[in-house]
Amino acid sequence: MKELVLGIDIGGTNTKFGFVDQAGNILGESSSPTRGYPVFDDYLAQLHKQIDAAKAFLGPDIRLTGIGVGAPNGNYYTGAIEEAPNLEWRGRVPFVEKLQAYYPGLPVVLTNDANAAAIGEMTFGKAKGMQDFIVFTLGTGLGSGIVANGQLIYGSDGLAGELGHTLVNVFGRQCGCGRKGCLETYVSATGIKRTVYKLLADYREESVLRSVAFDKLSAKMITEAALQGDFIARQAFEYTGRVFGMKLADTVAHFSPEAIFLFGGLVNAGKHLLEPTKRHMEENMMNIYKGKVKLLVSGLQNKNAGVLGAAALAWQKIGA
Amino acid sequence: MKELVLGIDIGGTNTKFGFVDQAGNILGESSSPTRGYPVFDDYLAQLHKQIDAAKAFLGPDIRLTGIGVGAPNGNYYTGAIEEAPNLEWRGRVPFVEKLQAYYPGLPVVLTNDANAAAIGEMTFGKAKGMQDFIVFTLGTGLGSGIVANGQLIYGSDGLAGELGHTLVNVFGRQCGCGRKGCLETYVSATGIKRTVYKLLADYREESVLRSVAFDKLSAKMITEAALQGDFIARQAFEYTGRVFGMKLADTVAHFSPEAIFLFGGLVNAGKHLLEPTKRHMEENMMNIYKGKVKLLVSGLQNKNAGVLGAAALAWQKIGA
Repeated sequence: MKELVLGIDIGGTNTKFGFVDQAGNILGESSSPTRGYPVFDDYLAQLHKQIDAAKAFLGPDIRLTGIGVGAPNGNYYTGAIEEAPNLEWRGRVPFVEKLQAYYPGLPVVLTNDANAAAIGEMTFGKAKGMQDFIVFTLGTGLGSGIVANGQLIYGSDGLAGELGHTLVNVFGRQCGCGRKGCLETYVSATGIKRTVYKLLADYREESVLRSVAFDKLSAKMITEAALQGDFIARQAFEYTGRVFGMKLADTVAHFSPEAIFLFGGLVNAGKHLLEPTKRHMEENMMNIYKGKVKLLVSGLQNKNAGVLGAAALAWQKIGA
Repeated sequence: MKELVLGIDIGGTNTKFGFVDQAGNILGESSSPTRGYPVFDDYLAQLHKQIDAAKAFLGPDIRLTGIGVGAPNGNYYTGAIEEAPNLEWRGRVPFVEKLQAYYPGLPVVLTNDANAAAIGEMTFGKAKGMQDFIVFTLGTGLGSGIVANGQLIYGSDGLAGELGHTLVNVFGRQCGCGRKGCLETYVSATGIKRTVYKLLADYREESVLRSVAFDKLSAKMITEAALQGDFIARQAFEYTGRVFGMKLADTVAHFSPEAIFLFGGLVNAGKHLLEPTKRHMEENMMNIYKGKVKLLVSGLQNKNAGVLGAAALAWQKIGA
């Protein structure tokens, strides 16, 4: 009898899931749509059906021992998804409670996607054995999961670790959260896109990006242009690294972590993102921190980090 | 037989100490000079003599069970005072090791003064039962001690929680740490003094502070002027609260604490400091945090917080 946990990663469009063993192998990976179910119960019924199908496919020789869920605005303490702007369900969705109805007696635990990424890094990635580290997920927004003293930092209400919403400039770019100048308006897939447009306005250099409309521009195109030496794209990464490095210096003064991990499509730019970020972080740090903090690509980069993180959360809950 | 711990609070001028019971009562409070002993061993011999005298005064009916020490740049992990700019001893002083030679077998534990203040707040102050809170000590500089998940955050090297050295403005005021624009150059006894001088230059209003030379100006004078309605002094607190509140919003995004405690002479200005700090903190926070975080005067304000904090550290070490 093989013991497995189920890892569920809820995205705005699709919900990915998989059965994961203690070594981090994913079996029976599959997905179910998130969008298109304005009524949450309908979504969950469909998800449950897909999970059952995937489980049946794995045969009778497995035993499900727990379920971990990573979700935008997922709250570890309440087990609910709360006011997630990128999901169709309004208000507070008691996810754990409703999922548990399908799996009586099974431990179910939920957190937000960036916290799940941090637990995934600690369990299956490069943070094994580390007590103090931070994971940043660079996607549409900028997520962060913080581990200190070997434990995830949830704060008094489960909402700690929103580093994408620290302030770069109170008169800066409009943010989805309703304020201005949040870090994620600069450092994220959408942030670097905005930076490219600013630089196309500021500079006169030629660039392959001049022929692309704002609506069509993607972080992938910017990354590829940078890898090919495009001036504007390279400057965009330099600008991103300057803003990110400066704010990382503040975060280091809070936690003095052993390492900071970066995850997401933008991280595929490699040194073009890491080098300026590291340089500006070092420049802005107090002497006592200089040269100590590792800035690394996530060990789960280009893996199914969402499912692995959610599964790691379940394994942690079980106490394995 | 009454069980007591010894709390030692090392300041730049004097070292205060006292024997503290589990309820936070200080017995046999005394002090020994810090300054004037360029050789550390001489300082420690003198301190030990004073401690022995105070202990003898308490009579034979007490038993010393542990020693806690709060020191500038004290490192919990190494037990050493490292490169403290305001002390006469250069380099790394192995404080715990040397003190232990005088008290064989007794647990001795050391941390920096702001961390000791946080543990004191948790043990004897208003943070009893809280799992997530931060203490700021506003003195010559700005110290901070952070508790998350009920534990002090030391970071990978014991140097976490230097929030006085987060950046307000990279082109800002020169800081003792060698950089520019650190929070403590604005929010501290010396910070508000610098702010008063900036405002005396910016404004034309009359002020009792116009007759005071920079070298003579103290935070206490500014506090008293503010309490009496002086325009410049009030504006100085408003300015301090604006800078502090803005950075507190970032810190809340890191930890989502239940409360933030302020300690130090400047806090005697009461609402003149707390009101603008709270207002600007709320203004700059993300919606999910608004109206949740308590901003409070320390429960150890105007008590011997240094000795109580160091003693609390010792009680914690013993596991009491």
